[in-house]
Amino acid sequence: MNQITNEVSNAVRILRETVPLVHNITNYVTVNDCANALLAIGASPIMADDIAEAADISAISSALVLNIGTLNQRTIASMLAAGKKANELGIPVVFDPVGAGASKLRNDATREILKQVKITVLRGNISEVSFVAGLNVSTKGVDASEADGGNDAVAIAKAVAEQLGCTAAITGAVDVISDGKRVIKIHNGHPMLSKVTGTGCMTSALVGAYAGALRDGLTASVAGVVSMGIAGELAYEAAGQTGTGSFHIAVINALGRLDSELMEKRAKLDEA
Amino acid sequence: MNQITNEVSNAVRILRETVPLVHNITNYVTVNDCANALLAIGASPIMADDIAEAADISAISSALVLNIGTLNQRTIASMLAAGKKANELGIPVVFDPVGAGASKLRNDATREILKQVKITVLRGNISEVSFVAGLNVSTKGVDASEADGGNDAVAIAKAVAEQLGCTAAITGAVDVISDGKRVIKIHNGHPMLSKVTGTGCMTSALVGAYAGALRDGLTASVAGVVSMGIAGELAYEAAGQTGTGSFHIAVINALGRLDSELMEKRAKLDEA
Amino acid sequence: MNQITNEVSNAVRILRETVPLVHNITNYVTVNDCANALLAIGASPIMADDIAEAADISAISSALVLNIGTLNQRTIASMLAAGKKANELGIPVVFDPVGAGASKLRNDATREILKQVKITVLRGNISEVSFVAGLNVSTKGVDASEADGGNDAVAIAKAVAEQLGCTAAITGAVDVISDGKRVIKIHNGHPMLSKVTGTGCMTSALVGAYAGALRDGLTASVAGVVSMGIAGELAYEAAGQTGTGSFHIAVINALGRLDSELMEKRAKLDEA
Repeated sequence: MNQITNEVSNAVRILRETVPLVHNITNYVTVNDCANALLAIGASPIMADDIAEAADISAISSALVLNIGTLNQRTIASMLAAGKKANELGIPVVFDPVGAGASKLRNDATREILKQVKITVLRGNISEVSFVAGLNVSTKGVDASEADGGNDAVAIAKAVAEQLGCTAAITGAVDVISDGKRVIKIHNGHPMLSKVTGTGCMTSALVGAYAGALRDGLTASVAGVVSMGIAGELAYEAAGQTGTGSFHIAVINALGRLDSELMEKRAKLDEA
Repeated sequence: MNQITNEVSNAVRILRETVPLVHNITNYVTVNDCANALLAIGASPIMADDIAEAADISAISSALVLNIGTLNQRTIASMLAAGKKANELGIPVVFDPVGAGASKLRNDATREILKQVKITVLRGNISEVSFVAGLNVSTKGVDASEADGGNDAVAIAKAVAEQLGCTAAITGAVDVISDGKRVIKIHNGHPMLSKVTGTGCMTSALVGAYAGALRDGLTASVAGVVSMGIAGELAYEAAGQTGTGSFHIAVINALGRLDSELMEKRAKLDEA
Repeated sequence: MNQITNEVSNAVRILRETVPLVHNITNYVTVNDCANALLAIGASPIMADDIAEAADISAISSALVLNIGTLNQRTIASMLAAGKKANELGIPVVFDPVGAGASKLRNDATREILKQVKITVLRGNISEVSFVAGLNVSTKGVDASEADGGNDAVAIAKAVAEQLGCTAAITGAVDVISDGKRVIKIHNGHPMLSKVTGTGCMTSALVGAYAGALRDGLTASVAGVVSMGIAGELAYEAAGQTGTGSFHIAVINALGRLDSELMEKRAKLDEA
């Protein structure tokens, strides 16, 4: 067992012992799945997005997850307030820039969040993380369909991580995670995960849960991403043939079964 | 069969005959489950939270359910408008103070709703109902983990019910329901219900459905809480071993199967 | 095989080849189901409802779906902005006037959307479409319970379609679809579809996906409605006895299985 596998195996045990409270300011499309995924992995979810309470709720939480999937001007302000409070108190912040690059509002919100809030983990697909990279670093053009887990993804993850002083987690067929120094590739998961809405959002929520329990962005990111990857594999075995509806439910079932033994047995991690 | 069991056995039959329209101003985390739970039990759900229609929708409904799980300043105003219209028309109002005590916004909203709206049923966990009690009555300190169904829960339920002139329903491992005079304890349910988000919200919605059909807060509360309890037991038998995702779906399946016979056979109620 | 059956059989193939991006400004009750239904049928969903990005997101989409199920004053403005941009760019617009007739806000919003946005498809139940008809044409009184698929539904569908220059899709036990010239009746579906929230919303989303792929409102409407009808039949066969929770999941499973062969085999369409 390599070092990182050992770390994530410990992580799931620590998470289940800790039961971190995870504050989510997230989208209304997948929020129910995020809450149930958090409960299944052993965390406790709280959703609160009004400016009058966002900072207060962050202050009592172990981690904050910001997801701009259905952002609006009201919730952007709440994300900033919650993020700044989390920074003040040393609470880890996971940022999922859903659809960054797709509209000026998303681009501006992403820029503003990164300017005002120090994030612990940036979790997105290669297109979203590349957009963030373009805000901060000079990269060559990236074709999301070609760069999956390849050299471009590694370069982008490292560059963004260094620039923002965070862990960057690029999820795709092969996931690439870097804190600017270490680079981990994850070979778990199943293509059917992309046929259910919210698997990315749930992954970010899980990373938040691990970050709240571990206070270490890199291990939290690997643990969160590999948890969803293994859950996808188990779900496909259990229900993939039946369809995406049943697979979706089986993902939640599988998250509830994850433990150190399953992590050690199934995690396919390599560190460059 | 004791009196209250007889009452809830009749309640489910009356609900299914009545098909009450239940107006929910509720959170976006669990709203889909609330709608499907209402349909399964035999009611008809409507969700509407804009101030320009909240009172109009309440006026055509049989019951109103207010849930502050993801409250914001816009929806608090709508809750007040809907609640006052329901009061004017004699339509029962169920209030679920989700997270009361966790932020100033939730505390202020709870206080304001209780000030401006006469509620029929207050449904929450012991921590939430204790917070409400603290607003209105003097209680000794309450430890949620110790007070479950015990003497404190009974005292708090009775005190809140008397102060507010409503029925108080404290849900937990043992549920305690009181209208200030009668006190009912419910021994149904399953621990896995706490591993799925929304089972509390669904319970409040079900209480709303029964209140709309029966126009009696105490019986409605017992019927709603025992319905979710029995559904949890049936769901665990059907799918508990598979995981919380499957259990969640099985809860909806079970609510659809509830009838007077199942109520009589499975309800574990005692009246102090 | 009649002409329209041939058309919808081709439609599902074209949709799966095209993978249209469908922009939804919709309600928070059923939005997760809409996203998963779109993914299952082979489309790609995007939800975005802030006025600062609604038009931008429509501009990059293949179709726009407007659903007023939980409308508010903020999202009505976004619907208008998105609809006007879609019109400018020739992107099809599906309008689902959920609850039209139930409140002044819904009535005013419906009127305003129809005034400012040229819609491609109007999809609703007979009560909702009759309300729209009343805004635009003179009809005799309609009793929703009696008019299902009968002469009134045909007359209303044709009249609304002519007045608005769109396709009108009235869904019910028998669905009636008309573009003012052709009239198609659909005899697929299952009564259990009405016991799960969101099957109407999902149908509108599916119509949007087909419209984005085909650029033909009539065929898109028939294909979307018959897809949900067949999915309901398959879901009932797979899981109907278990309950509405399992049926709900089975609907998504079935949408993922739809192909030209299933369409030809199961579609029950007749053209007057």
